[in-house]
Amino acid sequence: MLATLALALSAQAADPLPSWNDGSTKQAILSFVKEVTHKSGPKYVEPEDRIATFDQDGTLWVSHPLYTQAMFALDRVRELAPKHPEWKNKEPFKAVIAGDREAMANFTESDWELIVAATHAGMTTEQFLGIVKDWLVKAKHPKFKRPYTELVYQPMIEVMDYLRANGFKTYIVTGGGQEFVRVYSEQIYSIPPEQVVGSSILTKYEYKDGKPILMREPKVFFIDDHAGKAIGINLFIGKRPYAAFGNSGGDREMLEWTQAGDGARLMMLVYHDDAEREYAYGPAGGLPDTKVGTFTQALMEEAKKRGWVIISMKNDWRRIFSFGQ
Amino acid sequence: MLATLALALSAQAADPLPSWNDGSTKQAILSFVKEVTHKSGPKYVEPEDRIATFDQDGTLWVSHPLYTQAMFALDRVRELAPKHPEWKNKEPFKAVIAGDREAMANFTESDWELIVAATHAGMTTEQFLGIVKDWLVKAKHPKFKRPYTELVYQPMIEVMDYLRANGFKTYIVTGGGQEFVRVYSEQIYSIPPEQVVGSSILTKYEYKDGKPILMREPKVFFIDDHAGKAIGINLFIGKRPYAAFGNSGGDREMLEWTQAGDGARLMMLVYHDDAEREYAYGPAGGLPDTKVGTFTQALMEEAKKRGWVIISMKNDWRRIFSFGQ
Repeated sequence: MLATLALALSAQAADPLPSWNDGSTKQAILSFVKEVTHKSGPKYVEPEDRIATFDQDGTLWVSHPLYTQAMFALDRVRELAPKHPEWKNKEPFKAVIAGDREAMANFTESDWELIVAATHAGMTTEQFLGIVKDWLVKAKHPKFKRPYTELVYQPMIEVMDYLRANGFKTYIVTGGGQEFVRVYSEQIYSIPPEQVVGSSILTKYEYKDGKPILMREPKVFFIDDHAGKAIGINLFIGKRPYAAFGNSGGDREMLEWTQAGDGARLMMLVYHDDAEREYAYGPAGGLPDTKVGTFTQALMEEAKKRGWVIISMKNDWRRIFSFGQ
Repeated sequence: MLATLALALSAQAADPLPSWNDGSTKQAILSFVKEVTHKSGPKYVEPEDRIATFDQDGTLWVSHPLYTQAMFALDRVRELAPKHPEWKNKEPFKAVIAGDREAMANFTESDWELIVAATHAGMTTEQFLGIVKDWLVKAKHPKFKRPYTELVYQPMIEVMDYLRANGFKTYIVTGGGQEFVRVYSEQIYSIPPEQVVGSSILTKYEYKDGKPILMREPKVFFIDDHAGKAIGINLFIGKRPYAAFGNSGGDREMLEWTQAGDGARLMMLVYHDDAEREYAYGPAGGLPDTKVGTFTQALMEEAKKRGWVIISMKNDWRRIFSFGQ
């Protein structure tokens, strides 16, 4: 009896990916790690070259109905509104203050630029980190009614842990704001700030009361999306990843760049097809179209042609969140 | 007898900085490390926050009579000259091909920009790394008649090893080219490419024969010098250093930024006052003026006022190079 229990426990402990259903997707991860860590095998990779990169929004945590950072920016506009009476009659701020969901859903790139400039710049880097930290504690996701930092995909946490246990250095490579993600990356992903590559705005070295500060300027410095992800990986890491994980068109070049290296490479895309436990959107596979984390039919076909592995949230994930959904 | 020998050997092994003469400079390093690693002490620093940044040229290796990367660029101009007959009559190339030392010594910023564009761009990142690698094998320093990669300061290697043995993550933060330094940083400093922060030019994601490449463009992306060093540290590391090492005016802001944090901080400047074993230049302390790694009297006075520690190569270093000089 006790022996049986011990055996069962040890079998369970031996599975590094317990939130994944058995099948070819899970097997692709296990086989890849086996190949690159098999010292006398033909595809062995030295530990210092074991780099794995993860997109964040939609790959590691929920990004619908809007990116978390966009939610932050909108909340911030509402919080700052009393100090900006002129916003009441000025778009895009007017729509945000009025809570006009339809107008917000149709914001253009330049609308968002104005919002980012008003909410992400004009303060020091330290002040910004403090504002984000405070917001994360009180903000709740509209569907799940939980802090955003709890809406992390448990199966992906297991993949990151598993890769790290096998000598990989894990990086976040996000189109989102580098400084925004760095606030919580260590706490929720065990990824330190120096392993977060993201988009950034200009900072300026200035003095206040005789002390140096870094002021955030309302001007884009680097966009870490699409081709920018390959460029950012080279700039910040200087090594080509052996494994890359994404979920949308913005991750295409990162996966392509990863695959262009020699030896064993693992490219995976999270496909949001679980309307019941999370969300379902595409438009690949006939799922509803979206502006947030779009996964086109063309990307699905390219993935199949190139051997990129599609992760079906519905079929491959036994459990999505650590709180048991 | 044997016991005495064992005791002597163990005392020797206990000195983590054997190439440093005893004195207040060496003591400053030892005391700093003791303070930040003393778990119940008031200045204890968690291991994940132990960041140390090192300028390269003149701080970790020889930078006279010219920066190594400038030597590379000049050699490269000579190598490419047969393919560019027009250079014979076009400055600054004409002076380089003719070996006109006086003209080269007076090159302006824009002369160097033309040389960098001609020698560092118009190729893929992989091609560039290969060219640098090949050059490093064959190039020799004009005074020491050795490969540049041997002209590393042994006392600084010991400091880096000592800091790493005490949980520090060591970074190079250089005004030089990030991709240039990444070629050899692991080999000569045990610092991996992802821990090299430097200046960079734009790269562009393109395709050649269906494969993605990163093309180096003749356009500056980021200058990691002066205020750029503080900005670069925040951009690439996202943490403030506890220890910073430099040797010239370009490192001033990095030291200032380091010191502006709380708790124990170590700021050090290598002062080249050893004409016999290496070079002597200032103009601080009445040493000969230079355009390469200038250490002004004003910087010396600021260092004294702020408690930045001056490392005298002549007095503090028992040995400068691993080959025994």
